[in-house]
Amino acid sequence: MVVDTDRFLADLHALRRFGAFKTGVHRPTFSPQDMEARRWFVGRLREEGLEAEIDGIGNILGRSPKPGPHLLAGSHLESQNEAGWLDGALGCVAALHLARAGLPVDVAVFADEEGHYGSFIGSRSFTGLLEEAEIDRLANRYHDKPLREALREAGLEGRPRLQVERDRYKAFLEMHIEQGRQLETQGLGVGVVTGIVAIWQWRITIAGQQNHAGTTTMAERRDAGLTAVRLLAMIDEEFPRHCAERTVWTAGRIALSPGAPSIIPGGAEILFQYRDVDIDVLRRLEVVLRRCVAESNRRERCPAVLEAMSLSTPAVCDPALQDALAGAAESLAPKRWQRMPSGAGHDAQYLARVMPAAMLFVPSINGISHHWTEDTAEEDLALGMRVLAEGARRILQG
Amino acid sequence: MVVDTDRFLADLHALRRFGAFKTGVHRPTFSPQDMEARRWFVGRLREEGLEAEIDGIGNILGRSPKPGPHLLAGSHLESQNEAGWLDGALGCVAALHLARAGLPVDVAVFADEEGHYGSFIGSRSFTGLLEEAEIDRLANRYHDKPLREALREAGLEGRPRLQVERDRYKAFLEMHIEQGRQLETQGLGVGVVTGIVAIWQWRITIAGQQNHAGTTTMAERRDAGLTAVRLLAMIDEEFPRHCAERTVWTAGRIALSPGAPSIIPGGAEILFQYRDVDIDVLRRLEVVLRRCVAESNRRERCPAVLEAMSLSTPAVCDPALQDALAGAAESLAPKRWQRMPSGAGHDAQYLARVMPAAMLFVPSINGISHHWTEDTAEEDLALGMRVLAEGARRILQG
Repeated sequence: MVVDTDRFLADLHALRRFGAFKTGVHRPTFSPQDMEARRWFVGRLREEGLEAEIDGIGNILGRSPKPGPHLLAGSHLESQNEAGWLDGALGCVAALHLARAGLPVDVAVFADEEGHYGSFIGSRSFTGLLEEAEIDRLANRYHDKPLREALREAGLEGRPRLQVERDRYKAFLEMHIEQGRQLETQGLGVGVVTGIVAIWQWRITIAGQQNHAGTTTMAERRDAGLTAVRLLAMIDEEFPRHCAERTVWTAGRIALSPGAPSIIPGGAEILFQYRDVDIDVLRRLEVVLRRCVAESNRRERCPAVLEAMSLSTPAVCDPALQDALAGAAESLAPKRWQRMPSGAGHDAQYLARVMPAAMLFVPSINGISHHWTEDTAEEDLALGMRVLAEGARRILQG
Repeated sequence: MVVDTDRFLADLHALRRFGAFKTGVHRPTFSPQDMEARRWFVGRLREEGLEAEIDGIGNILGRSPKPGPHLLAGSHLESQNEAGWLDGALGCVAALHLARAGLPVDVAVFADEEGHYGSFIGSRSFTGLLEEAEIDRLANRYHDKPLREALREAGLEGRPRLQVERDRYKAFLEMHIEQGRQLETQGLGVGVVTGIVAIWQWRITIAGQQNHAGTTTMAERRDAGLTAVRLLAMIDEEFPRHCAERTVWTAGRIALSPGAPSIIPGGAEILFQYRDVDIDVLRRLEVVLRRCVAESNRRERCPAVLEAMSLSTPAVCDPALQDALAGAAESLAPKRWQRMPSGAGHDAQYLARVMPAAMLFVPSINGISHHWTEDTAEEDLALGMRVLAEGARRILQG
């Protein structure tokens, strides 16, 4: 098995031209530049002898002509707006080069991992978790174009949606940039992903009483903003006592209504989330969060209501696959790798529901992602490609 | 001296027709309905024998033909959007009825106390604190129409702006709704205002680092929102230890940027204000606020910058005038009155710079103001009118 890392890098750079934006790319799902990239990629798959097509949701499957057992590998091609050249593209081109190296690998490109129209519609379609009714309902989150209209304009209307042939595959592999700076700060070249964290997203709505900030005494007030502040301070004191090592929590949005300097906030809405790879930790933190809200409701005059917006399931990467990738990493980059969870969601989390799945991370310079300055050193890209290929070889042999 | 409270109430109700909105009024400054109300009021002043005109900033002065010493009394006629029928109008009609009762009172209507175009432009113009250059610069805060254009459309362009004749007046009196519920909750009918609180308005800007809420560990984060939450919680713990009895403080706006659930806030902006009638309390709280920000900057990874937006001066109501109003209140409503600060700003705070000034409050039902449901019981309106007139009589005699 020979991996041509020069050609691998050349293909990555070729893909970078589609929707080029500064040093990154702007390739929103089903935009002309995105469709051009997909068609180019189908062409490359065919050049490497794979049988390839774009399906009715924009997914691409390149089928290997080699006899099984097969691996499935891939990621996504579209980008966030004005974002990086490697997020998604790396995993697609790496999968192509597994096949090019002679391994019996099918290459998958999952549409809209970046969520311009929905949540993981490509990998959910492929794994049987996307209903037609949801496709009818979805529209672009930035400009409201219905998904059906986008599919029609992209020339995909009426095509069947490919479904995974579970029996065909031994495993799914996805290579991706880390999107954090754990590898970089430790001087490591490769991360073997232990699992993909679940996001438990909550809305906390606090009801106060809007009033004049001058004429309403402190004793009379029901200031929803102040209750929000105290509740969030309490949560942030409690969570470190109950979280796991890599748990993260974020109040990304605090909206006061009406939000004027001389008006006591009559309402507050907080979007609060936490992420962990361990379902027990997620459940434990739900108990802590509920306790904080109950305590707030005992102490405060403004009632807070806690509402779950989405509670996803963590995806554990298959231990045997992890071991194969770890073995490959240790042989090609001794002591320059670690096991680590993925803090972001990936298509692999849906593939993990239908077959053993694993992921390999390469470092992100300064941890930047979802921005056009996202980048990874070429030597890290090449090392990652070699480790992925060696890992795939070990998996197929194991 | 006879006060005709029936006619007083009838005039209030007549004024309510201009820009009627549900049970309140919608009379933005210089709108057609506002100008119609001003012209009607000029007519009423003339009917009562006063020499009245609208000046170049929209102020009305109705001059009494009686010999001095004179009092000046009044308030404002425009309303907040879709607001109450008494806020401002009460003080104008009450002043008219002081004159109608035979007292040597000039009646003043100050334009735009509600700040559609600027900050107290009417009372500042009258007291010599409004430059032409500021008029050139101001525009409507809701629809951006330049003040000059509004004055032209209202037919006021080119008229002179009346300036206060300081020597003509012994005092300024303004009657107003309380806009709070202190009187109501204590079952009182009248409030003698001790002073008008100053508002010290601050902006706190916190700089964090915008990042991915999944891939950035808690140890790496610089979450500007979390720093904002902890700082506000600290301020709210410290302020009660240093404030005065009626001090109020409000964080009316907390804006996180970018404000998305999966992005660590890279910036936070807080608008924080406190109000008190005592300049020493305001200064003491500035020290406390600066100490809290400094403490936050010692503890946190996200630096906070404190910036003064406006630091006004409290207006103390003249003690002798207060005593005259208090004496009138005790004689007409024994034990049903109290002294109290005004938590909101009023034209009287500018008049207090050029002559002794005082204010009288009547109760607001449920403390509501700046909303069309604002109201006051007719018996409270009539009692307030009688107390004001008796107080004015005592002041003139004193």
